[in-house]
Amino acid sequence: MSTLIKQHLVVAQNASGRNMNVPLYRFVGEKPGPKVYIQSSIHGAEVQGNVVIYHLIQKLKSMPICGEVILVPNCNPVGTNIKAGEYTLGRFDPVNGTNWNRGYHFDQAFVEEFASSVTTSESIKSIKTRFRTAMKKQLQDKLNQDWGLGLAQRLNLMLQQLAFDADYVLDLHNGPVSTRHIYVPEYAQESASLFNIPHVILMPKVFSGALDEATFCPWWILKELLNQQFSKMIDFEVEAFTLEMGSQEVISFSEGEFDATSIMTFLTAKKVLKSEKLVPINMPRKAVKLKNYKVLYSKQGGIVEYMLKPGEFAAKGDVLARVLNVDNLDTNEATTDILAPCDLVAILHFPSASVLSGTQLYKCFTHYFEL
Amino acid sequence: MSTLIKQHLVVAQNASGRNMNVPLYRFVGEKPGPKVYIQSSIHGAEVQGNVVIYHLIQKLKSMPICGEVILVPNCNPVGTNIKAGEYTLGRFDPVNGTNWNRGYHFDQAFVEEFASSVTTSESIKSIKTRFRTAMKKQLQDKLNQDWGLGLAQRLNLMLQQLAFDADYVLDLHNGPVSTRHIYVPEYAQESASLFNIPHVILMPKVFSGALDEATFCPWWILKELLNQQFSKMIDFEVEAFTLEMGSQEVISFSEGEFDATSIMTFLTAKKVLKSEKLVPINMPRKAVKLKNYKVLYSKQGGIVEYMLKPGEFAAKGDVLARVLNVDNLDTNEATTDILAPCDLVAILHFPSASVLSGTQLYKCFTHYFEL
Amino acid sequence: MSTLIKQHLVVAQNASGRNMNVPLYRFVGEKPGPKVYIQSSIHGAEVQGNVVIYHLIQKLKSMPICGEVILVPNCNPVGTNIKAGEYTLGRFDPVNGTNWNRGYHFDQAFVEEFASSVTTSESIKSIKTRFRTAMKKQLQDKLNQDWGLGLAQRLNLMLQQLAFDADYVLDLHNGPVSTRHIYVPEYAQESASLFNIPHVILMPKVFSGALDEATFCPWWILKELLNQQFSKMIDFEVEAFTLEMGSQEVISFSEGEFDATSIMTFLTAKKVLKSEKLVPINMPRKAVKLKNYKVLYSKQGGIVEYMLKPGEFAAKGDVLARVLNVDNLDTNEATTDILAPCDLVAILHFPSASVLSGTQLYKCFTHYFEL
Amino acid sequence: MSTLIKQHLVVAQNASGRNMNVPLYRFVGEKPGPKVYIQSSIHGAEVQGNVVIYHLIQKLKSMPICGEVILVPNCNPVGTNIKAGEYTLGRFDPVNGTNWNRGYHFDQAFVEEFASSVTTSESIKSIKTRFRTAMKKQLQDKLNQDWGLGLAQRLNLMLQQLAFDADYVLDLHNGPVSTRHIYVPEYAQESASLFNIPHVILMPKVFSGALDEATFCPWWILKELLNQQFSKMIDFEVEAFTLEMGSQEVISFSEGEFDATSIMTFLTAKKVLKSEKLVPINMPRKAVKLKNYKVLYSKQGGIVEYMLKPGEFAAKGDVLARVLNVDNLDTNEATTDILAPCDLVAILHFPSASVLSGTQLYKCFTHYFEL
Repeated sequence: MSTLIKQHLVVAQNASGRNMNVPLYRFVGEKPGPKVYIQSSIHGAEVQGNVVIYHLIQKLKSMPICGEVILVPNCNPVGTNIKAGEYTLGRFDPVNGTNWNRGYHFDQAFVEEFASSVTTSESIKSIKTRFRTAMKKQLQDKLNQDWGLGLAQRLNLMLQQLAFDADYVLDLHNGPVSTRHIYVPEYAQESASLFNIPHVILMPKVFSGALDEATFCPWWILKELLNQQFSKMIDFEVEAFTLEMGSQEVISFSEGEFDATSIMTFLTAKKVLKSEKLVPINMPRKAVKLKNYKVLYSKQGGIVEYMLKPGEFAAKGDVLARVLNVDNLDTNEATTDILAPCDLVAILHFPSASVLSGTQLYKCFTHYFEL
Repeated sequence: MSTLIKQHLVVAQNASGRNMNVPLYRFVGEKPGPKVYIQSSIHGAEVQGNVVIYHLIQKLKSMPICGEVILVPNCNPVGTNIKAGEYTLGRFDPVNGTNWNRGYHFDQAFVEEFASSVTTSESIKSIKTRFRTAMKKQLQDKLNQDWGLGLAQRLNLMLQQLAFDADYVLDLHNGPVSTRHIYVPEYAQESASLFNIPHVILMPKVFSGALDEATFCPWWILKELLNQQFSKMIDFEVEAFTLEMGSQEVISFSEGEFDATSIMTFLTAKKVLKSEKLVPINMPRKAVKLKNYKVLYSKQGGIVEYMLKPGEFAAKGDVLARVLNVDNLDTNEATTDILAPCDLVAILHFPSASVLSGTQLYKCFTHYFEL
Repeated sequence: MSTLIKQHLVVAQNASGRNMNVPLYRFVGEKPGPKVYIQSSIHGAEVQGNVVIYHLIQKLKSMPICGEVILVPNCNPVGTNIKAGEYTLGRFDPVNGTNWNRGYHFDQAFVEEFASSVTTSESIKSIKTRFRTAMKKQLQDKLNQDWGLGLAQRLNLMLQQLAFDADYVLDLHNGPVSTRHIYVPEYAQESASLFNIPHVILMPKVFSGALDEATFCPWWILKELLNQQFSKMIDFEVEAFTLEMGSQEVISFSEGEFDATSIMTFLTAKKVLKSEKLVPINMPRKAVKLKNYKVLYSKQGGIVEYMLKPGEFAAKGDVLARVLNVDNLDTNEATTDILAPCDLVAILHFPSASVLSGTQLYKCFTHYFEL
Repeated sequence: MSTLIKQHLVVAQNASGRNMNVPLYRFVGEKPGPKVYIQSSIHGAEVQGNVVIYHLIQKLKSMPICGEVILVPNCNPVGTNIKAGEYTLGRFDPVNGTNWNRGYHFDQAFVEEFASSVTTSESIKSIKTRFRTAMKKQLQDKLNQDWGLGLAQRLNLMLQQLAFDADYVLDLHNGPVSTRHIYVPEYAQESASLFNIPHVILMPKVFSGALDEATFCPWWILKELLNQQFSKMIDFEVEAFTLEMGSQEVISFSEGEFDATSIMTFLTAKKVLKSEKLVPINMPRKAVKLKNYKVLYSKQGGIVEYMLKPGEFAAKGDVLARVLNVDNLDTNEATTDILAPCDLVAILHFPSASVLSGTQLYKCFTHYFEL
């Protein structure tokens, strides 16, 4: 059996001057193999991932592991604990609005410089080791800087130091009111079918601050640079995903077990686990390119019924939502229907019936295809 | 047909110096009859009542009315518009924590003084008219005071001025995650069965600031004082209810139509409307005394799955909820079950999976009975 | 020298399932004497009291003490840590609006029942001991109840258990933008002049949930009942005060030292400390009855300059504040002056220039007198 | 005299379905001249600019104007009205954390394409007119897009449509607790001395979403491209500034008059106004390059006294702030001093004494020079 080590990582101090830490569970396998990093709840209201990690830990305790699996549930002790009304204001720092999932580090120039240090004879293993060492040093330098660092960014960089060692990085999130979906870098499209998740967003090589991007962008770009340099096909076998495990603000132990099995199926395909039972479910999987994953904003303010449920299809012109205007309850203008601008599948919608104009009502798959 | 008059009532000014107003729809019937006052959304996230009023208005437009029906949807333009994260922080004033439904006025001494002004020969109609006039003057005096008035209280008193004219007052609310239920003053217990609402809370003659109490307490106490004074059985036929129309933060047009029909059924029984079809549904109705409507507080903080759904029964010792502790995911203490302290029916539960200790997890009927 | 014991008291758990605790510093004197209880920051943004306690601890370390002094800084680990924007939302529970200083316990019937248990021969010391024991048992019973307790109330009751043992209770607060002032029960008016605080509010025997009231009300009422019962003049020598140490959201170490000296002056007069230097400053002290401590609410919304500073006098009709209306910047109605309704001294004003109608603009002494 | 036109511009709808609008005051001069655009309070708690615009309007009413001056006070009706506790949460959208001053539009490719359309013979006037038309069409296309637009971005783009017509754009802000300072594009360094503002930040040609950048970046880049293309020195005489008028959450009418005079001095130098009295004050003006305007983050959480006041100098190693740790009040570690990492002038500091680790404690001029 593998060894389980439990630690706590101090990532911040609160206004009482007390340390805030995240729990860290590390399974070290008896046999060598890939490293896996799984975290949950960087957005404080997106808590289902903690249940998924609970089931993973309970199951991994009795399974042989090749390599290493690090699990970091509840990885944002600040965001988890900010209540505003009954809900958790966990998506951004309440002091300055910083999204907790946008402060990871990526520096294209650094990757380019590193690429130029690689020689044609260097082994993939050596490149990976050196790249990780250099990257973690860069992260540490940022963490050490004299003038300090913002709260969200420090948290992100400390987690990234752990994650950058891994070959497979899974960041567990939830949508607002949402069906299950997963963000997959385009080069790892085949891995999308290893999870039991029906909706897949294919990500280009663009960094906008999130952990998955901060993981796959450096390796992706390094691979391309080296392949150009040496005219061959290096593959680092590093992949990173953001998994959206249904809706925020709710947990379900039974769904968490299903999600854990889905992740173990992926890990089995990647040879971290061994099990004949853990094969992907035969299910339809719809995919889009990121640019076709569209946000529909409300043009009006008012009270909204979301008619189209997450996972459902609407044809162009179908009613997605109905808005009530309290000043016209006696007229034909009491309600307004919001129509689908094109054929689409709703992936998630806003979690409140009360919206201002300019609210993200729906996020939708358009021009999607079957994987 | 009745006449429909639409007005707007200025109740506050915002920080831009602009007036904030509430819409007011007044149906004046051709024939005399009782006055009815219905408002919704004094708590800004509790928006289903607006849909109910929408359906009421659409239906009343084509029905004969005896008396008068005033409908005030979205009666709190401040609370409706306070977002904190994606949700509406509509239950209390964000500046000072004042619950928007606790600033109505009731003054026992005033009722006692009024009672002593009634003579044995005065007609009920005359008493009602004089009492309303005196009460509204008292409200106006409070509104006019030199040093001003708090935001919530001014809003409450302005609405109360409208409501105190009515014989039937319905205040439309929602629970957090909730089954439908209704607060009914004990003396009006028979009216509970006129609504199609399965759970009934019977209220004693105690004022804690809400509109229903501010309506029924004065009449209840006046009735008792006069009945003592004159040793007879006066009945003012004034009733007030708080209707909880399911869960906050969501609306449903189809459920709103059901709720509107339920209210019209009540109005038919009270002779405001005439319809042979509008009779109460034959359904089980559970009732409790207010003191047996109990709050279960969490003893721990953590992430919670609410196993018992609103409307469901649990026997003493059954699991109500399961709490996950992220620091013990590898042990048997990873989860803790919260058990029912006695036989109960869950009416509502907290709307977020993330709770601190001391959170209102559930509100439950205990020692309930069938109506 | 006295002995200093440091402890931590667990008062809550956060949503991560971690304990939240308050620090507790207990000086046990070599000689017997009164017990003193001092806490700060039950309202999380009112932090100057922590600095005052810091100076007290640093000074008391080297002074002989008669009796015992318990100091509980930062006594609300929840409220201290809720940011909403850059400021601390520390005045009420962000989940439900409950004021953190309104959940203390007082039960008139309990005091009356206890009074009837006292015999004419019982010593004051015995009465005090028995009353404290009974009261703390009542608090413990509330804390232990099956269905649990709300977060704020649990915190309050746990602190009250500590405070009810004390003869002198000091609750350190701040106003919004505020001059120093102190709440003093009417029976302890003479003690007001032992502090170096220029503004004094004299409190009647009314309980509205705060710690000072929860301390002095039971003793005051018990005293009156017993004095009626036995026609004599018992005095328990228990006093409780709320000290408002200037403005919230700022601290000053130098002002904190001044405040600490003021408290030590009081403790010297009460024979807890011995020092010839610690005598009250000869200064004017203005006092009002609570009913003459008036709130001025804004009638308009807009942007406000507070012309009258805390501590300053205005005659009836003087300009207190000027409101800007952005829709009329080109007219004579661009600004509106808010005038003093009567002669007054401003004690505090609202801390933001942006106000809705119904905002507490100023709190003022009216009909005040020199102590 | 000039003509004053007052309008209101609808920029959003709130959750009640009501329009939210901004006031717009437009002075059209009798003689031709530059266009000026001045807005205030895009960050809702930064309200002093409204007072400045009030004074400007009152003064401009009686002055001849060459050209046109558009004044848009309180330009964010959403952000102005979000209270969280007593303060205004006006810096970002409370729903999603979007900074209200980061959604303006800039598209380098668009500028490059436009540059290639310019011929060597085209007049500056013609280029300016065509560029403005093209840019405003681009803004309108964004505003019209089928899937809608986020709240902050729509507001920003609507204001930018007004601003892009102007030759001089002034965006009035406040810092948290702040001395007056101004952001000036490097090419307009000489204009910095036309304002009576002691601290100047020189901005490079980088766009990060703010209005000043969205104004000067297109013109700056267009100028450089054309100067390269035609090897001459075109100057469009378009300048944009962000003025920080002291601290947020307070207004002062007298300081507002000083600030208005400062802006009128600038406008006089730019020939919009004519006055011999309106000349810049002879005062020291310190300037830094943006990269030397540094943020100092707290490394600890705790309660802080800001020792160094905005505008004050500290030498390397001087104490800037002192942090209190409530768990060590009895030891030498009760307080920790935060030292200046190098010689600096404090420009602003955080407005609350309670900080988490990673809080922006100070923003400082380093390596500054006299203008």
